[in-house]
Amino acid sequence: MLRGTNLPRLGDYNQAVILDLIRRDPGTSRADLQRSSGLASQTVSNIARRLLDAGMIRESEPTEVVRGRPSIPLTVNADGAFSVGVHVDPALLTLVLVDVAGQVRHRQQLRMPQTASPHELTSLIAVSTGRLIREFGVDREKVLGLGIAVPGPLDVQTGVVLRPPQLPTWRDVHLRADLHDATGMPVLLDKDVTAAATAELRTSASSDFLFVYLGSGVGAAVVIGGQVLRGDSNNIGEIGDILVDPAAEDLGWGGRRGGLAAACVPEALVIQAAQAGLLPLPDLHDYLALDDACTTLSELAANGDATASQLLERAARRVAVGIGVLVNFLDVPRVVLGGPTWKRLSGAFLPVLEDAVRAELIVPRDSLAVVGSTLSEQIAAQGAAELVMDHFLAPHASVLLME
Amino acid sequence: MLRGTNLPRLGDYNQAVILDLIRRDPGTSRADLQRSSGLASQTVSNIARRLLDAGMIRESEPTEVVRGRPSIPLTVNADGAFSVGVHVDPALLTLVLVDVAGQVRHRQQLRMPQTASPHELTSLIAVSTGRLIREFGVDREKVLGLGIAVPGPLDVQTGVVLRPPQLPTWRDVHLRADLHDATGMPVLLDKDVTAAATAELRTSASSDFLFVYLGSGVGAAVVIGGQVLRGDSNNIGEIGDILVDPAAEDLGWGGRRGGLAAACVPEALVIQAAQAGLLPLPDLHDYLALDDACTTLSELAANGDATASQLLERAARRVAVGIGVLVNFLDVPRVVLGGPTWKRLSGAFLPVLEDAVRAELIVPRDSLAVVGSTLSEQIAAQGAAELVMDHFLAPHASVLLME
Repeated sequence: MLRGTNLPRLGDYNQAVILDLIRRDPGTSRADLQRSSGLASQTVSNIARRLLDAGMIRESEPTEVVRGRPSIPLTVNADGAFSVGVHVDPALLTLVLVDVAGQVRHRQQLRMPQTASPHELTSLIAVSTGRLIREFGVDREKVLGLGIAVPGPLDVQTGVVLRPPQLPTWRDVHLRADLHDATGMPVLLDKDVTAAATAELRTSASSDFLFVYLGSGVGAAVVIGGQVLRGDSNNIGEIGDILVDPAAEDLGWGGRRGGLAAACVPEALVIQAAQAGLLPLPDLHDYLALDDACTTLSELAANGDATASQLLERAARRVAVGIGVLVNFLDVPRVVLGGPTWKRLSGAFLPVLEDAVRAELIVPRDSLAVVGSTLSEQIAAQGAAELVMDHFLAPHASVLLME
Repeated sequence: MLRGTNLPRLGDYNQAVILDLIRRDPGTSRADLQRSSGLASQTVSNIARRLLDAGMIRESEPTEVVRGRPSIPLTVNADGAFSVGVHVDPALLTLVLVDVAGQVRHRQQLRMPQTASPHELTSLIAVSTGRLIREFGVDREKVLGLGIAVPGPLDVQTGVVLRPPQLPTWRDVHLRADLHDATGMPVLLDKDVTAAATAELRTSASSDFLFVYLGSGVGAAVVIGGQVLRGDSNNIGEIGDILVDPAAEDLGWGGRRGGLAAACVPEALVIQAAQAGLLPLPDLHDYLALDDACTTLSELAANGDATASQLLERAARRVAVGIGVLVNFLDVPRVVLGGPTWKRLSGAFLPVLEDAVRAELIVPRDSLAVVGSTLSEQIAAQGAAELVMDHFLAPHASVLLME
């Protein structure tokens, strides 16, 4: 399964349970593990010994003494295994190298070549992945695999990117197989919003939330009871067509008039800004130009331009209507926003968003939290790397893999 | 727990597992049970013996011979236990007596007294429950409890009906405690849509679907992997405010203009019908008059009135936009419609609904099914009774109970 690595046999279910517990709760002791796993004391000790011998975990100095015996904290050995996460956004290509403790150890961000074919992009990802691993200097055998987060819709079962509206030249691209051929690594493909929510779940104290993803497009993911919902065809979260403003202006674009995408994606915001005379209209097929124009718009608002501020506040109120639809429907206690575009919009959005969402609620809920993710623009890449870790190291594999 | 019944101790977890398996798969054998429960052969035999002795299950004639030994089908003894389900809809009060095999054995439907206070309604439910049990002639000790399905929002933890828009005189009514006092029975309170989805799940082959409830109001429930989602505060499914037609007419009512409720609840349809000159406008505070007018409207359409038909077809197309929002968001393979108003609308809705929903999908899905529930108007009452059965007989209790 791991093609020549010297890691212990990871197929062992109990071992996966123990490693997963240590990974999620660093500093846990053998006694803690026994309680939370339900395994016998001797079994836990044997597995811990095997994981120590294999260099997957390490012991720290005892911090307390329990009934005369020191309680030795166990943590994963961060350098024991790695995975690479890649996020394909129409404007940005982001690569991260994540260690088994969940830390991003190395990263690379490229502006997406706008004219690249899927084949050229596959080569670019393969070359960039190789460079990322070489630059950091990690033994390639320690890299479990490559996770790719892409805009939907996908066929996750076959690893095919179907017809993403934001990658108009992509039609049924066998990205998982192509990247496996180009890198020789196990490759996992998932939706950008699902990957981002996975990263948010790993780093947040909350296990029930709606994740709203703002990138070149807008999407959502749902986490209930610590599980990331995936949907029947792994295409959960297509929210761009939700009507949020019946009186919205006509943008003369491909999206639904008055819809959530028309309210907040960079293309729509830039068209609105150009209509308001804030900036010249860029080439709408050039996601880099759109992304730059979106940055300009948010800087105008941050620097006090009243028209730009009003435009973004209106956007926030429209987004709140859409979030209200989702919270009313699913009765979630927490909404987290993130993704490549979020940081630029958060300054204008956060002051109005929570109250505006609450005003939409049919069942009043004082405790509803609407917050920004603490993870940066690399959130989807980080989540893609986490999904690879989960596939190899967690007791339940959640997604299919080409290997 | 069961106040003097002679049922075997139901707290036993393994026994609950076995009884639940027999309840859900009538005709299963001891060998089947052993495989599906993972329990030892002797344990399964002992539990089956206890359940037989207690009259909770019975054996049928052997239908096949496996390795020389006859395989004896086990089914629950339908008369072994019962529960009562009540559905409080603003227009109709529905009571059903359900047996442990899930069959509705007796029922009663009353038009809701429109001027009754919550206290008077509590008395009416208590009296009607007593009559239902007496009329059918079942020993009251065999009735496990009373399940009540009401319009949200609720506080399920405390058993309080908060401020349902369709029961305007109800404010923080402690319905669970009041009904427990009035009947002496264990009482369980749940949302109408959640109860309806529970009944649909029990009687359908599908374990993943969106349930759209049409009664005096409109709501939704979500079933994923055979689990009915409940939401963080048990108030999942408030979908009435979803915008479905930016150009919708002004109804001059309390609901959101252009919203899903304005598209399809009886009050909104009747206002539209009156605006179109199809019928005189009834008293909008009288849910019985609204319900009757809704029946008149659907009969006009069924009898070929073009204006009535167009009005209902427009309603169906608007409902399809709302369902499209939910399917795009959650990526569900199947949509089931039901509830007290559904049967009257289905004739006009079904011919257009599925294609209209598919036209809304961002990720095309040829296999999406949009169907009507095969359960009749008593679906929510039946589900409320099932929730009581689950509470007492399933290995995991899902909701809190006053007893």
